[in-house]
Amino acid sequence: MQVFDRHEVLDRKEIENLQAIRLKNTVHQATASTFYRNSLARASVKVPDINSHEDIARLPFTTKEDLREQYPFGFLAMPKEKMVRLHASSGTTGSPTVILHTQNDLNVWADLVARSMHCAGVRSSDVFQNMSGYGLFTGGLGIHYGAERLGCLTIPAGVGNSKRQIKMLGDYKVSVAHIIPSYALHLGSVFDDQGVDPRSMHLRIMLIGAEPHSEEIRSRIQEIYGVRAYNSYGLSEMNGPGVAFECEYQTGMHLWEDAYLAEIIDPETLEPVPQGQTGELVLTTLTREGMPILRYRTRDLTRFIPGECPCGRSHRRIDRITGRSDDMIVIKGVNIYPMQVEKILMSIPEVGQNYIIQLERQGHMDQMRVKVEIRDEFFVEDMRRLQQIQNKIAGLLREEILISPKIDLVEHNTLPQSQGKATRVVDKREEGK
Amino acid sequence: MQVFDRHEVLDRKEIENLQAIRLKNTVHQATASTFYRNSLARASVKVPDINSHEDIARLPFTTKEDLREQYPFGFLAMPKEKMVRLHASSGTTGSPTVILHTQNDLNVWADLVARSMHCAGVRSSDVFQNMSGYGLFTGGLGIHYGAERLGCLTIPAGVGNSKRQIKMLGDYKVSVAHIIPSYALHLGSVFDDQGVDPRSMHLRIMLIGAEPHSEEIRSRIQEIYGVRAYNSYGLSEMNGPGVAFECEYQTGMHLWEDAYLAEIIDPETLEPVPQGQTGELVLTTLTREGMPILRYRTRDLTRFIPGECPCGRSHRRIDRITGRSDDMIVIKGVNIYPMQVEKILMSIPEVGQNYIIQLERQGHMDQMRVKVEIRDEFFVEDMRRLQQIQNKIAGLLREEILISPKIDLVEHNTLPQSQGKATRVVDKREEGK
Repeated sequence: MQVFDRHEVLDRKEIENLQAIRLKNTVHQATASTFYRNSLARASVKVPDINSHEDIARLPFTTKEDLREQYPFGFLAMPKEKMVRLHASSGTTGSPTVILHTQNDLNVWADLVARSMHCAGVRSSDVFQNMSGYGLFTGGLGIHYGAERLGCLTIPAGVGNSKRQIKMLGDYKVSVAHIIPSYALHLGSVFDDQGVDPRSMHLRIMLIGAEPHSEEIRSRIQEIYGVRAYNSYGLSEMNGPGVAFECEYQTGMHLWEDAYLAEIIDPETLEPVPQGQTGELVLTTLTREGMPILRYRTRDLTRFIPGECPCGRSHRRIDRITGRSDDMIVIKGVNIYPMQVEKILMSIPEVGQNYIIQLERQGHMDQMRVKVEIRDEFFVEDMRRLQQIQNKIAGLLREEILISPKIDLVEHNTLPQSQGKATRVVDKREEGK
Repeated sequence: MQVFDRHEVLDRKEIENLQAIRLKNTVHQATASTFYRNSLARASVKVPDINSHEDIARLPFTTKEDLREQYPFGFLAMPKEKMVRLHASSGTTGSPTVILHTQNDLNVWADLVARSMHCAGVRSSDVFQNMSGYGLFTGGLGIHYGAERLGCLTIPAGVGNSKRQIKMLGDYKVSVAHIIPSYALHLGSVFDDQGVDPRSMHLRIMLIGAEPHSEEIRSRIQEIYGVRAYNSYGLSEMNGPGVAFECEYQTGMHLWEDAYLAEIIDPETLEPVPQGQTGELVLTTLTREGMPILRYRTRDLTRFIPGECPCGRSHRRIDRITGRSDDMIVIKGVNIYPMQVEKILMSIPEVGQNYIIQLERQGHMDQMRVKVEIRDEFFVEDMRRLQQIQNKIAGLLREEILISPKIDLVEHNTLPQSQGKATRVVDKREEGK
């Protein structure tokens, strides 16, 4: 196996030793920040207490609310003058979350992204079109720096303007694209509208991430474009892209354990879940100097995939994100994750590329309505045929989520199409109260 | 004087010697491209002919049309696999103009931008908000890489969302901003609307460029924000930003002659204009390896400013761009540059931040109509007062451009506001023909 970085093939013991050293360094570094000086003192944790990767359990958790309360600079472990980059969330609900990086932090991040892309089969000879938004959002610049580090011919396409995206894919013989999964599906229908076969492009790899999606969505993307699509995971609090990435075996995402110490906990008890079970991912930065973060509660639900990966990389794999600990829908007393609905919908051949889950209240009763786009060839005038499709969808969903949603079939391209992360759930239960 | 790069203070002879060596290298490098192999052969120029900076005159010109005809890769002097970045124009009128860079090209570019920003007084301790569009447009990533190279805390704000821009300027104590001049004026009125004094921010420097503007616009920006505003010059064919930049004396832009060989020619005869006269700027890359460009006709009109700059930098200064050789308005047989109109308008205290020049046809007669926003405090109900303002504007414009335009006074914030380069001239003469 060809690796980009020798750290990819450290054995388990070597990784744990490295984690112990880097965790100690990180805790030492963190005490330079206002926030951690206080929070570590409250938890009575001192640097000499940290001698093993397992000592992570002594540290207090960090939450998004902590980051917001310290807005903008309370987490800085070095003088602001040493920082060269600021990223921030949009802050539509409260203070933005601000993450700052030194030049060294940016270098390490670019290396992690380059390693990640290489791990998915991208090489320096590839032509790479980055269809992520640039600017404060980390998906754009994060992947961009990594692609250049790897040596790809990098096209900073940004989001939107689908016709231009298609022209660039063709004219520049693009072989690798970075794209949000819902936009990949939408772009497929723009190809259709233009009468161009997406498989006639030179694409061989698509890197998809930035929003949770099902295996069925991946299969559709691979089918539409005739590519291998690789899942990726990252979040701005942990730099952005480059936290975990799939290798050629597409069996979960290798989480780079030399850079992040990962735990999976029960979001209620905050204790580790048994090995292989799903829980909330908690991450600690191991290499960040400007703004280290300890035990960050990502709210993302996943599990460690047991066993070794055939690729030979020793870094443990996490499963695709099945939801967020705070996006669970509770309806009629049943817990449902939107990803369960998506998984069923995308396995049905008649279903098109877009859907919306709408939560409503009828009298005192909550109700789920699923609006589903149907492929043109199935959207026929025959009411009986449409009724059959409707019943089929309702039946399959009931089997998975145990309640019976209302199903509205709509025509291709009639549901709102976002160009960023898709909005899949609309909660109208509180309206008109 | 503190310089970022020792090349800034080479003496004239050293610059010319360096140019001779680099020009020879560049011509040698260029012959590896399809386009220049043919064009240099047609002009019977061989590498051994190039032994002095003055031998530039032997080389053929390159135009935007040449770049378009060679779309996308006909100018490459190295294999595509060596390239790591692609920038392109929008291609709304014909094929896009594509510029490609090796990693080394990007490094040199970042150094030039860092040097430019340093020359305008920016330091590594500054907090820098980049309000340029990221992606394929070179203003965003170009300045971004330079700011990081200089060591500034760089905020990749991107364009638009004025309220958020203002929040960031305040919350992050931003000391330097990069902004398009027309947007700087617009943002000033958003500050007004929000009841916030732009001078209460921590801003000390604004880098303004990407669109030609008058000295009066600069003065207004300095006045509104209480900053020093520095003019800059660049174009994507020559990388983007970082071709020429003002120093603290604000007396023209030092053109980095170790990286670009500059000529000013008569766009009709293609001969050099006499020293100090205005003509079309022609530029040759001296350090670019992936895609060298020889004698590029920028279409931008400027002149070399005679004499030495008090700052001690030896690189000659170009004057602010007064227009483009192809944007001259011909009306009633008179040649007018939009910049002449702007200069007058912005010198009138009653005039607000926005204006549009509209060319119309009445019967067989061409006519110029200038729509001008008036500051709120002058937009009163008193028709006689408004009439006076109208007459004053018409009179001052007639003195400058020799024809009498119609003047429409409109209220603050009623003319269309672009968030990118401002559209100042609307030609309606061919409509309804």
